[in-house]
Amino acid sequence: MDGVDHLADERIKADFDVNEMKIVWAGSRHAFEISDRISRLVASDPFFRKDHRGVMGRKELFKDTLRKAAHAWKRIFELRLSEDEAGRLRFFVDHPSFLDLHWGMFMPAIKGQGTDEQQQKWLSLANRMQIIGCYAQTELGHGSNVQGLETVATFDPHTDEFVIHSPTLTSAKWWPGGLGKVSTHAVVFARLITDGEDYGIHGFIVQLRSLDDHSPLPGITVGDIGTKFGNGAYNSMDNGFLMFDHVRIPRDQMLMRLSKVTREGKYVPSDVPRQLVYSTMVYVRQTIVADASSALSRAVCIATRYSAVRRQFGSQKGGPEAQVIDYKTQQNRLFPLLASAYAFRFVGEWLKWLYTDVTQRLQANDFSTLPEAHACTAGLKSLTTSATADGIEECRKLCGGHGYLWCSGLPELFAVYVPACTYEGDNVVLLLQVARFLMKTVSQLGSGKPPVGTTAYMARAEHLMQCRPGVQRAEDWLKPGVVMEAFEARALRMAVACAKNLSKFENPEQGFAELSSDLAEAAVAHCQLIVVSKFIAKLEQEINGKGVKKQLENLCYVYALHLLHKHLGDFLTTACITSKQASLASDQLRSLYSQVRPNAVALVDTFNYTDHYLGSVLGRYDGNVYPNLLEEAWKDPLNDSVVPDGYHQYIRPLIKQQLRTSRL
Amino acid sequence: MDGVDHLADERIKADFDVNEMKIVWAGSRHAFEISDRISRLVASDPFFRKDHRGVMGRKELFKDTLRKAAHAWKRIFELRLSEDEAGRLRFFVDHPSFLDLHWGMFMPAIKGQGTDEQQQKWLSLANRMQIIGCYAQTELGHGSNVQGLETVATFDPHTDEFVIHSPTLTSAKWWPGGLGKVSTHAVVFARLITDGEDYGIHGFIVQLRSLDDHSPLPGITVGDIGTKFGNGAYNSMDNGFLMFDHVRIPRDQMLMRLSKVTREGKYVPSDVPRQLVYSTMVYVRQTIVADASSALSRAVCIATRYSAVRRQFGSQKGGPEAQVIDYKTQQNRLFPLLASAYAFRFVGEWLKWLYTDVTQRLQANDFSTLPEAHACTAGLKSLTTSATADGIEECRKLCGGHGYLWCSGLPELFAVYVPACTYEGDNVVLLLQVARFLMKTVSQLGSGKPPVGTTAYMARAEHLMQCRPGVQRAEDWLKPGVVMEAFEARALRMAVACAKNLSKFENPEQGFAELSSDLAEAAVAHCQLIVVSKFIAKLEQEINGKGVKKQLENLCYVYALHLLHKHLGDFLTTACITSKQASLASDQLRSLYSQVRPNAVALVDTFNYTDHYLGSVLGRYDGNVYPNLLEEAWKDPLNDSVVPDGYHQYIRPLIKQQLRTSRL
Repeated sequence: MDGVDHLADERIKADFDVNEMKIVWAGSRHAFEISDRISRLVASDPFFRKDHRGVMGRKELFKDTLRKAAHAWKRIFELRLSEDEAGRLRFFVDHPSFLDLHWGMFMPAIKGQGTDEQQQKWLSLANRMQIIGCYAQTELGHGSNVQGLETVATFDPHTDEFVIHSPTLTSAKWWPGGLGKVSTHAVVFARLITDGEDYGIHGFIVQLRSLDDHSPLPGITVGDIGTKFGNGAYNSMDNGFLMFDHVRIPRDQMLMRLSKVTREGKYVPSDVPRQLVYSTMVYVRQTIVADASSALSRAVCIATRYSAVRRQFGSQKGGPEAQVIDYKTQQNRLFPLLASAYAFRFVGEWLKWLYTDVTQRLQANDFSTLPEAHACTAGLKSLTTSATADGIEECRKLCGGHGYLWCSGLPELFAVYVPACTYEGDNVVLLLQVARFLMKTVSQLGSGKPPVGTTAYMARAEHLMQCRPGVQRAEDWLKPGVVMEAFEARALRMAVACAKNLSKFENPEQGFAELSSDLAEAAVAHCQLIVVSKFIAKLEQEINGKGVKKQLENLCYVYALHLLHKHLGDFLTTACITSKQASLASDQLRSLYSQVRPNAVALVDTFNYTDHYLGSVLGRYDGNVYPNLLEEAWKDPLNDSVVPDGYHQYIRPLIKQQLRTSRL
Repeated sequence: MDGVDHLADERIKADFDVNEMKIVWAGSRHAFEISDRISRLVASDPFFRKDHRGVMGRKELFKDTLRKAAHAWKRIFELRLSEDEAGRLRFFVDHPSFLDLHWGMFMPAIKGQGTDEQQQKWLSLANRMQIIGCYAQTELGHGSNVQGLETVATFDPHTDEFVIHSPTLTSAKWWPGGLGKVSTHAVVFARLITDGEDYGIHGFIVQLRSLDDHSPLPGITVGDIGTKFGNGAYNSMDNGFLMFDHVRIPRDQMLMRLSKVTREGKYVPSDVPRQLVYSTMVYVRQTIVADASSALSRAVCIATRYSAVRRQFGSQKGGPEAQVIDYKTQQNRLFPLLASAYAFRFVGEWLKWLYTDVTQRLQANDFSTLPEAHACTAGLKSLTTSATADGIEECRKLCGGHGYLWCSGLPELFAVYVPACTYEGDNVVLLLQVARFLMKTVSQLGSGKPPVGTTAYMARAEHLMQCRPGVQRAEDWLKPGVVMEAFEARALRMAVACAKNLSKFENPEQGFAELSSDLAEAAVAHCQLIVVSKFIAKLEQEINGKGVKKQLENLCYVYALHLLHKHLGDFLTTACITSKQASLASDQLRSLYSQVRPNAVALVDTFNYTDHYLGSVLGRYDGNVYPNLLEEAWKDPLNDSVVPDGYHQYIRPLIKQQLRTSRL
């Protein structure tokens, strides 16, 4: 560390108040202060070091997980951190582990589906980590189709127990994080059978391992499912498999909030509405959208800083070469991702509000907004995670060759992130759920049942089906109303076109299957509209700080207009815009890039990531990339010795032409 | 292995002669036979086992590289393999190593740039592997901009030597494969300075390590650059760094075919045309396009077979669920990639012909086709590698959760493949080279100098600027002439539009920079046209075997029509097609998917990959996925013990609430 800020020139260029923007990004001054304090705490604690994850073997990496988890828990106690602060600490430790499932899935499942007594008993144990839990749903043969799960829980009235059993190989639980080596308990999803009747999938609390010596209980076969994508990454997590051989649990370990089995074996639904399950889904997906913004902003931060450090070509009269961030091709790939990180942040913030709203309504027995909220979160989960996975890899490519080094931080970020496209609903399956909801909404237009929430725009179908945007000059594309209308018209017209094509099929299900690709595209158009509209809504709020609002406006229009360009075929086939207007949008986009350019580094400083959290030599705050790349290289195990292990056995016989006689 | 073929039903469905298609894929019966024999040889040799790469640490993995390289060399001798066969053997060993650079870059560089005497001396050593060489061009601070390299080679007339020196940190050689730990020699690219004059970048043969004990020679600092993307993957390769402290080499180790330095230090260009260098580039890029087809076909093979094995949803009356390959959303993502693998195969074949053609012309002093050939290979390298990298990741996603397991083969295939987007010319930089050539070609239209090779279509500019395709029914999109004209018109109109916009700038370079994103898109359009046209040309050749031609026709139109849909904005803004025609193309595409569906598994069997080469539990030939996933899982080091290492230190104190007092 020579203390020089190699990006100082970039930071001076910014014409907005970075500190105020940090508050906007964090959501509030309070949130900013917690994140800022906790991230520094983690960064300065040598226990949380993570720069050696890339060379660790599986066992070592896993042991490091256990060590960090224990240390984190110790620190949380010592510092008397609040629940909120503890959550931030786990976030900044940035090490996928069984803790994610214990806090993020096991406990919420019990909260959502357990009775009051069950919550009291199990959550107090879990809260103190006297037990460690995971969420055992997915099986070797079933992921998306939860109703197809094969594990059975048969009630035995003689002993007042459920018998949990894995009848087939494909019924083995497969993937649950924390299951492989750590969890003492699991919420297991299984088909409930009582009195010879199959009542479908229900949750059961099952103890897996002895609390004395951690050995699996009788009838339980459990292990780790093996190495996953990437070095480091999710290999610190013990995703597991689990097979039951007639394992007996007390009847009261069925989660009984929504329905119960009586002592006699009678299945009794409770009067708690089943829709409550959906509110948990809204909650989980809301956190996934927030994570998308975190992951994408991290990649963008690395790529932006490095693009300002890296110079290539364009030296004038022997002067320095051009910074690669000055190339339009670089801007055209990087700035839309920067804008997307902000867009996803704001739509995530809105989803938090939506979750609160849905929860309050449910408590008041108002289920009217639930289907729309459910579709909307499904779609946004799909949209943001797909864009983020692609965006991280694009950021890696934007860093050229050096982005391929593990120490760039981008390979691991990608490997850690990509499962988000699959878990909690495969992204394509989710889009089709959205499409189904859209088709239903279209079919009800004019029926007197007005579309609600994010589909409210469809009420203006008559106007949107025939409107033409009043864009005559490039600047017209900076009008919120113009942009909104173009996106609304496109989304509606695509949905209506799908509905029309569907109506040509005698069998609606067959039609839906046949046209599913078109339907998925219509769903994407609807979801992009939501993101654009929430960004525009954000601009209408009070925003403090010199130049802050202006920057957000630029990013908002970069986001919208790059989508317009990317999906130009949609806008043109639906006649929402003309070719001429498309060309004006491109002109406007280029001009926006010029305005973003001087602010780019400050716009990623806004994320307030420590070098520890960022974990990237290329993305270092001080921009001092090259000496640190060399320093990292020297640390590789292969550099432990000058002459590599294997030289005498393999290289020397090769070049000395003695291979034929040597034993390999 | 229970010997049952779980995909037998799929294989029966195929209505074409798979064996004949294998010949078409391989290029000839002879090529097929060599590949078939050598791939089985490798698969059956336990030395070449690779299923444990994913859990190997860096050192172990590297030692395994050395071992396999030595064993491969031994087998090549023992079996007296031809050069061709030896190359296939290295290919099927499928382990990135220093050998790739020794045979693929070091020796070709000497062949291309060395004098006859230099070739005789060095190639005979290299051919017997008495020396091992690498290609040291890229530096820490320079990749794309080769002219900006900083390493210097200063001629010292007193001693008749060159002094090789790294004047800065950023001048350190960085990335060369095989450099870090193995190579004894390198072709080093450096600025040639003689008599106080800088003559730019030239190649020099430099010995790096002692042939006796492998220690680096005086003045040489060398090491490995560290861990790269993914487990296994390129971590078996010792990509290295290298710094020179005034290292002296004899004058005759400058590669002197194109220019030499005399005993007196005079710089003398030879009469050998410099353009020869480009023919090497054409050669290297041709191999990259062939590799793209190999990598993509491998991913597609895995995803196709697994999509036929995997069932999810859609069970009717308690019967089995639907195979996921039957979903249109799956087909819409998978089949265009299947078609792309074939398309890239055929364009790669054509590039081989192009290289031969260019070489013959050069020998006859005909340089007329060189700029076009150079642009065309640059563009095809960019197009095929980008599509392949994205395609592999898409195939991984198409395998759902299990695609994220290392043993699916897809994570490592992705990690191994993605550098192809960056090396040998960053893909965006290459597109801009193509665009530059296109702009020049457009500017010369009507000047009497007719466009050649893949730009010949531009001679019909007058027609192509105003033609309208005669598509009135979906089937019209199966006419080669119609498809070709649409792609030609789109490519030309985009190029012409760019030229027109460029002409508005006073400073052409500034205009080029400003419009570079549009220019890159025009280059993509041109390159896609080339791939489509070579696929169509392939269909016009004699093709044997029942149903083989029909299958290729289906794939050709899948390839073309999915591109049309993906880039619909291009086709519509240039008014090459109408919205109605676009919709007919989508209809036709869906109908083609139905025709591909029953043949899909047979169309990937055609690639003739052994399970060893494929390296995927999901892609196994016999489709027996689930038991083998479990078997793989048990092998993970974490499953060595039931209770994991770290339990007593970290888990037990945690759940027993004894953390506060324990030392971590």
